[in-house]
Amino acid sequence: MNAYFNGVEKPVNEQLAAEFLDPAHTAVITIDMHDGHLSQDPDCPCPSPRGRQIIQPLNDFLAHCRALGLPVIHVRSTLRADGADERLYPSAWRMVFPITVGEIPNIAQHALEGTRWNKMSIETEPTDYRVNGKKRLSAFYATDLELLLRNLGIRRIVLTGCMTDCCVLNTAFDGANRDFRVVVPGDLTRGTEELEQPALQMISLHLGLVVDSQALLQHWESEVAHG
Amino acid sequence: MNAYFNGVEKPVNEQLAAEFLDPAHTAVITIDMHDGHLSQDPDCPCPSPRGRQIIQPLNDFLAHCRALGLPVIHVRSTLRADGADERLYPSAWRMVFPITVGEIPNIAQHALEGTRWNKMSIETEPTDYRVNGKKRLSAFYATDLELLLRNLGIRRIVLTGCMTDCCVLNTAFDGANRDFRVVVPGDLTRGTEELEQPALQMISLHLGLVVDSQALLQHWESEVAHG
Amino acid sequence: MNAYFNGVEKPVNEQLAAEFLDPAHTAVITIDMHDGHLSQDPDCPCPSPRGRQIIQPLNDFLAHCRALGLPVIHVRSTLRADGADERLYPSAWRMVFPITVGEIPNIAQHALEGTRWNKMSIETEPTDYRVNGKKRLSAFYATDLELLLRNLGIRRIVLTGCMTDCCVLNTAFDGANRDFRVVVPGDLTRGTEELEQPALQMISLHLGLVVDSQALLQHWESEVAHG
Amino acid sequence: MNAYFNGVEKPVNEQLAAEFLDPAHTAVITIDMHDGHLSQDPDCPCPSPRGRQIIQPLNDFLAHCRALGLPVIHVRSTLRADGADERLYPSAWRMVFPITVGEIPNIAQHALEGTRWNKMSIETEPTDYRVNGKKRLSAFYATDLELLLRNLGIRRIVLTGCMTDCCVLNTAFDGANRDFRVVVPGDLTRGTEELEQPALQMISLHLGLVVDSQALLQHWESEVAHG
Repeated sequence: MNAYFNGVEKPVNEQLAAEFLDPAHTAVITIDMHDGHLSQDPDCPCPSPRGRQIIQPLNDFLAHCRALGLPVIHVRSTLRADGADERLYPSAWRMVFPITVGEIPNIAQHALEGTRWNKMSIETEPTDYRVNGKKRLSAFYATDLELLLRNLGIRRIVLTGCMTDCCVLNTAFDGANRDFRVVVPGDLTRGTEELEQPALQMISLHLGLVVDSQALLQHWESEVAHG
Repeated sequence: MNAYFNGVEKPVNEQLAAEFLDPAHTAVITIDMHDGHLSQDPDCPCPSPRGRQIIQPLNDFLAHCRALGLPVIHVRSTLRADGADERLYPSAWRMVFPITVGEIPNIAQHALEGTRWNKMSIETEPTDYRVNGKKRLSAFYATDLELLLRNLGIRRIVLTGCMTDCCVLNTAFDGANRDFRVVVPGDLTRGTEELEQPALQMISLHLGLVVDSQALLQHWESEVAHG
Repeated sequence: MNAYFNGVEKPVNEQLAAEFLDPAHTAVITIDMHDGHLSQDPDCPCPSPRGRQIIQPLNDFLAHCRALGLPVIHVRSTLRADGADERLYPSAWRMVFPITVGEIPNIAQHALEGTRWNKMSIETEPTDYRVNGKKRLSAFYATDLELLLRNLGIRRIVLTGCMTDCCVLNTAFDGANRDFRVVVPGDLTRGTEELEQPALQMISLHLGLVVDSQALLQHWESEVAHG
Repeated sequence: MNAYFNGVEKPVNEQLAAEFLDPAHTAVITIDMHDGHLSQDPDCPCPSPRGRQIIQPLNDFLAHCRALGLPVIHVRSTLRADGADERLYPSAWRMVFPITVGEIPNIAQHALEGTRWNKMSIETEPTDYRVNGKKRLSAFYATDLELLLRNLGIRRIVLTGCMTDCCVLNTAFDGANRDFRVVVPGDLTRGTEELEQPALQMISLHLGLVVDSQALLQHWESEVAHG
């Protein structure tokens, strides 16, 4: 199959395919696909409207992944209801958003435990895994994601969700640093429009493979059939 | 002073200036400014030729920082000489570089302890701090950088060096996740040419402030004078 | 006030009092005071019967702490219901308990999410903080405890609960390594009977102060009154 | 072979032997066997005189381990020469030692980079691995030990050195939390005399196996011969 190397589609050689694209020991991770980013409500506390484009494609992809027996892990930001998790140190993005993307009236509600914004926007199954306590940008930082992956015997992680240029990219860095093989289907992640493509190029240059989800599924199915 | 918010120069308001630009509790960090990236020798194991543009500006900037009493910390990749640090899991960038940037004949020597490539390419002083054991892309991962910063009472980190779209960006993510205030002088970092600007935009949207080093020095000097 | 230095009661000097016993920036942490350790049900999956001795004293102590305005944090082991968190690597204690303390019929249920064993055995208040996802022995490992403490501005941690020679001791090590000042009221922790005193001696030699809870409360109240 | 279960010698069953005592994927770690603990000089900055008892036995043991092909890793505390690593937060043990073990005139020199105290007191080989930057009590905290172990494919760690009730015990906790199988030869570790045995009991109850080094070598040799 092909991948996108610094934005250029080229075939994946055998060594890379063996390392990154074997469905064995692979988990699929969704990042922050919740109503706090994806609701169309004007009160949405941290809107990521482009993320709505991937809700249905991601639902379809996950259904295939489950059928192939791959573990699915949903990582979601959740902050303590009283704001303790950012009391002394409000996140930088909260402070600059009024300048960069404009005032967000309801931003203080973002990811707060007990609000309606924590509802997942994609379909989940009871057998999926949850890492619900993401506090910062990376799915690994101050969570038990690494422990879960290692105890499931996972060596390869497929990252999806939002935002491409922020939490997905940070998780790709952290995953690669921890020696997981990182794969990002470019059609299953969205972020800041003009930074999606650069983020995918960075991933393809430094961290892992950027692919199309359909090609990935076909490759996996072929591996399973002939494996 | 001004900063670059998603690439647009605008004034920094008082709240952001107080959080990010106070010279108190600030450390200046250089990342991977060593001959393994910056030597002009054809055997250079991981060339980052654009990084040579910032050697002299960074030397000048650091001299001013030291004069202002700011701690300077040099973070440098160093891998065990026998390759143990990547024995089972060679880094993704090593595997894709033949496809993305071309074959690098001497890549196996990158950052190996005991080679001549570990020589710093910028001027250092005995009173500067060293974090010499970076093993992956982030200056924080598997190093004692966070411990050093906390014991120096540092709250703000100024990131310089290379590469903008890789180790500098990863360190900016990790610093922001750990609640350090991140400042990146765009003129003191280099990387993949077409990804430098996008990486700085990501930093300015999600992680901290992107500034010019001259404006930063003038702001600090004014703060110290009127302190 | 006095503390127990390697088991010997002696006065705390001014420097130690200022560092460890100032009620400012202090949080009180309970560790694993849940029915999975403390239920009298014969099916209790990981019985720590000596821990029942401290339920009432700890309830009383926490009430005073809340009245003094100290944050209370309850750390509790909780493992994913399907056993994923120890799938490949069952904890060593599970494997040796049949030899060391005898067979525990219901051990597989220990800390599993959704079981009745997760009920807290002590009184909690809605304003207390929870760190519910402890997976291993330390309250810090793979949790967000450090992030919470730093965002609350905490510098001193008072450790209570069970077991003295295991999770409390491990948390004392991890807290001291992270530069928190560790205080353990010896009367508010229980473990393996013959190892409680040695564990407290280790804490007092290497990690922090071992005190009586009544003396600690009186000291804090005096500090608050005269502070 | 036998192990010590809460201080009582009993045979190791097959399941435990397979998990903990297979020489495959095993590394041997020495902790802080340097002159800063072990020198007989009256200026020794942090004397651990009982540690001298194990210098020769450990030299012999390591020679056998190398002959069996097991990687040997020496972990050693080293602190920045200007004291930065404990500037704001001097370690608790420094503050209580005058009360618990008596004044140590030269304690400020402990582990400082560039002093003669960093010399290793045991025999080392160029092919041994070094983790020289331990800053706190655990060999894992703020070091690259976990990264090194994972890249060598290590699943089992044999801990030796000093002190039993402090750095060895803390490293055993941290190793077990990270799902490494922990083995401690009780005859190759020393600490506070009356706390050595309790520390070994804690390890055997909660963290791994406590064995005799001779029995371990014989078991490994038999495994290699028949393996």
